[in-house]
Amino acid sequence: MSNTATLGLYGLGTMGSALALNILDNGFALHVSNRSADAVRDFVSEAKGEDLAADLHGADSLEAMVDAMATPRAIIMMVPSGKPVDATIDTLIPLLSEGDTIIDAGNSDFRDTIARTKDVEAKGLTYIGMGVSGGEEGARRGPSIMVGGTPAAWDAVRPVIEAIAAKFGDEPCADHLGPDGAGHFVKTVHNGIEYADMELIAETYGLMRHGRGQSPAEVGAVFEGWNTGKLDSYLVEITAAVLQATDSETGKPAVDVILDAAGQKGTGRWTAIEAIRMGQSANVIEAAVAARAWSAEGEERDIGAELFGGERGAIDLPDADLEAALLAGRIVSYAQGFRILAAASTEFDWSIDYARTAEVWRAGCIIRSALLDDIATAFRADLPKGELIFAPTFVTLLRDGLPSLRRVVAAASSAGHPIPALASALAFLDTMRVARGTTDLIQAQRDFFGRHGFVRLDGRRDQHGPWWE
Amino acid sequence: MSNTATLGLYGLGTMGSALALNILDNGFALHVSNRSADAVRDFVSEAKGEDLAADLHGADSLEAMVDAMATPRAIIMMVPSGKPVDATIDTLIPLLSEGDTIIDAGNSDFRDTIARTKDVEAKGLTYIGMGVSGGEEGARRGPSIMVGGTPAAWDAVRPVIEAIAAKFGDEPCADHLGPDGAGHFVKTVHNGIEYADMELIAETYGLMRHGRGQSPAEVGAVFEGWNTGKLDSYLVEITAAVLQATDSETGKPAVDVILDAAGQKGTGRWTAIEAIRMGQSANVIEAAVAARAWSAEGEERDIGAELFGGERGAIDLPDADLEAALLAGRIVSYAQGFRILAAASTEFDWSIDYARTAEVWRAGCIIRSALLDDIATAFRADLPKGELIFAPTFVTLLRDGLPSLRRVVAAASSAGHPIPALASALAFLDTMRVARGTTDLIQAQRDFFGRHGFVRLDGRRDQHGPWWE
Repeated sequence: MSNTATLGLYGLGTMGSALALNILDNGFALHVSNRSADAVRDFVSEAKGEDLAADLHGADSLEAMVDAMATPRAIIMMVPSGKPVDATIDTLIPLLSEGDTIIDAGNSDFRDTIARTKDVEAKGLTYIGMGVSGGEEGARRGPSIMVGGTPAAWDAVRPVIEAIAAKFGDEPCADHLGPDGAGHFVKTVHNGIEYADMELIAETYGLMRHGRGQSPAEVGAVFEGWNTGKLDSYLVEITAAVLQATDSETGKPAVDVILDAAGQKGTGRWTAIEAIRMGQSANVIEAAVAARAWSAEGEERDIGAELFGGERGAIDLPDADLEAALLAGRIVSYAQGFRILAAASTEFDWSIDYARTAEVWRAGCIIRSALLDDIATAFRADLPKGELIFAPTFVTLLRDGLPSLRRVVAAASSAGHPIPALASALAFLDTMRVARGTTDLIQAQRDFFGRHGFVRLDGRRDQHGPWWE
Repeated sequence: MSNTATLGLYGLGTMGSALALNILDNGFALHVSNRSADAVRDFVSEAKGEDLAADLHGADSLEAMVDAMATPRAIIMMVPSGKPVDATIDTLIPLLSEGDTIIDAGNSDFRDTIARTKDVEAKGLTYIGMGVSGGEEGARRGPSIMVGGTPAAWDAVRPVIEAIAAKFGDEPCADHLGPDGAGHFVKTVHNGIEYADMELIAETYGLMRHGRGQSPAEVGAVFEGWNTGKLDSYLVEITAAVLQATDSETGKPAVDVILDAAGQKGTGRWTAIEAIRMGQSANVIEAAVAARAWSAEGEERDIGAELFGGERGAIDLPDADLEAALLAGRIVSYAQGFRILAAASTEFDWSIDYARTAEVWRAGCIIRSALLDDIATAFRADLPKGELIFAPTFVTLLRDGLPSLRRVVAAASSAGHPIPALASALAFLDTMRVARGTTDLIQAQRDFFGRHGFVRLDGRRDQHGPWWE
């Protein structure tokens, strides 16, 4: 995909078509194909309609597409994760030759990407696992792109990837973040943070709506105001928009005609599971995953409301407390995301650049927010134990925000509003600021019933309590 | 292992030796062996010392042991989980013949047990995966035993298993709970509940110790009192004991010389991970896993204390509130454990008997408690959606306990005491008793940025918001 490489894209679904138009829009010649040839014809006429078909070559099949391409070739797969990716790779391998590159731009599990990189590269080809965030609009106008692969693979694709990526100022929001699965893993964690941020926002909305009795539009206006401050971000911006939208059929607030059962596609769960597996429990992300899972249990919650009463009491807190609590929650969810990245980077020897990761997220992706500049700055400075919450900027913000977060959690807990994510953020912060916790008792219990032993405060290991004397 | 079957046990570590003595104590003849023959000699003299060596046959190797046993044979493996189990099975298979049974009595991952059952039974042998809880003392005097395998396999081993198991009244705390991995899975979830209960207790201790300024012994005395009420349980009993114990070296409370960094052996994590994977987020268990993980970050917490101040404020709450909050948390952790069992039982087609599971846990195991009888009764009655928190007994207890749990969470959140598990229990209960939550907003956001669509309250699916008109 350097000047001499030809570029192909296979899979013209919503995301694939958008990315293909983006590539053409940036002046690159492109071959395209799709499992059903109809989609190829539709895409070619769509590109013609946008005056982007000059350098476009449609092919009826993957074989025909590869055959028409001059070597070296770089082929972007935009197919559903899992088996379709493997099937496409299996088809491609005999068609390609040394110097060619396969790029998986879908939402693959990073473990699959690690395995596929090994398999494909053993055959003399190059493999890139590329996380792409920003939805259809991002893919068309500029997504955030997280690349995993060898430095040489990155050098070869860099011009086109940087051209199609979102820009923060003049800087492309795309970078090479590590080998093999690193790009897809960073994308997974991005989505975990996205889950957490959305849940924190939803809980804060709930407190204003059901605890302060405000209408969705009124709450939307508050979010609109917050979007000009420290909470400036895409998710707060769209929250303001959706809460102020009206359903055209009923004239009701749009949010009020939607069933409260949230879907999930797996990346939030993956993040939570990987975090726990690596001992990096990310409880705000876990809370968000839990809230979505429980939201699907509508019949259970109807019974619960009948048996326990579904009332939510008044919340008498000013906007400023809610804003500061939400900001503190957001900081914790970012911090936990970076903790997971650090654990994975160590385990898989990826050497992920956390500052660059934050910068790549500054435009094009769902979690873009004003905080990310501060995060990049924090990781470039001397950061105690690599913990984001210990960076001077965040220490200041959290010191200011903690009293508000306490008031919000206490008020919501008293009045019966479910706030799993906000409460989890507080639990994390309080755990991390208490030098001596209460797991000494847990160690005593474990020694009592299982003779597991413990470390004494003086450093002696494998000690037992007086109950064994 | 019926009257004519001979019984062998391989692996004479702490748990294996204890279980072997238990078997001999119950009048069964037993062959034993171990990787190193020294342990066999040591065990034989230990059994002689207890006058239990009459029907004991020690062998220097697994091969020699199997060779000395008349067919049909049943061989209990008590070796570390993972590779040692596979290695032992590989050694055993060529030595055994049709009608022989291999029993894994260790803490194996239930997925391994499913795979091993398939492999071993394809060779005409019988395989049992058996969860054993109760530590060394339980193994010696009567553990709780959770058996996975075919009904025929269970019938063959039942007499000895029931004989060596703990007794609740006259009833053995052992049963066949499902096929292949079911026994080890139930044991895993048992441990997950154990993690949660221990963390809830530790948090409650922390509030009394650091929020009410009580000494460990004073707190221990409170727990001792609670153990005569609804919280009656092994873990509360030993908490009372360890908190009142004194370190003989320093004269300090024993718990005060122990480093607050809790170990974990994996089953708590497995439970949390499996729960999330199956969409059954068990947030109290997750909180307990998180608390242990974070407890190991002592240096981070020292920095946190310096930067944010480590103080914990006063908690002005009576014993009754703390007792009721702890009870509510315990009910939620059991309820979440059974939700995980139900999800797994459906996924793996295990038909687990939840009432029997509760009964098997009533004696011998770490989470034995007075609640388990009520749980068994609840599962035998008509239980709405199979949810324990909807059983009349628990509805009553939770209605009584919720106000206390709210006061405790609010007070701890205000005063800066980390209470991840108690707060998670409240978040779960409040989520499950609110008929309409706030994920409608999350669905609106997802539709806005990703055109994911949503279900309207009138039931129409794949709808979009006005932002797409």
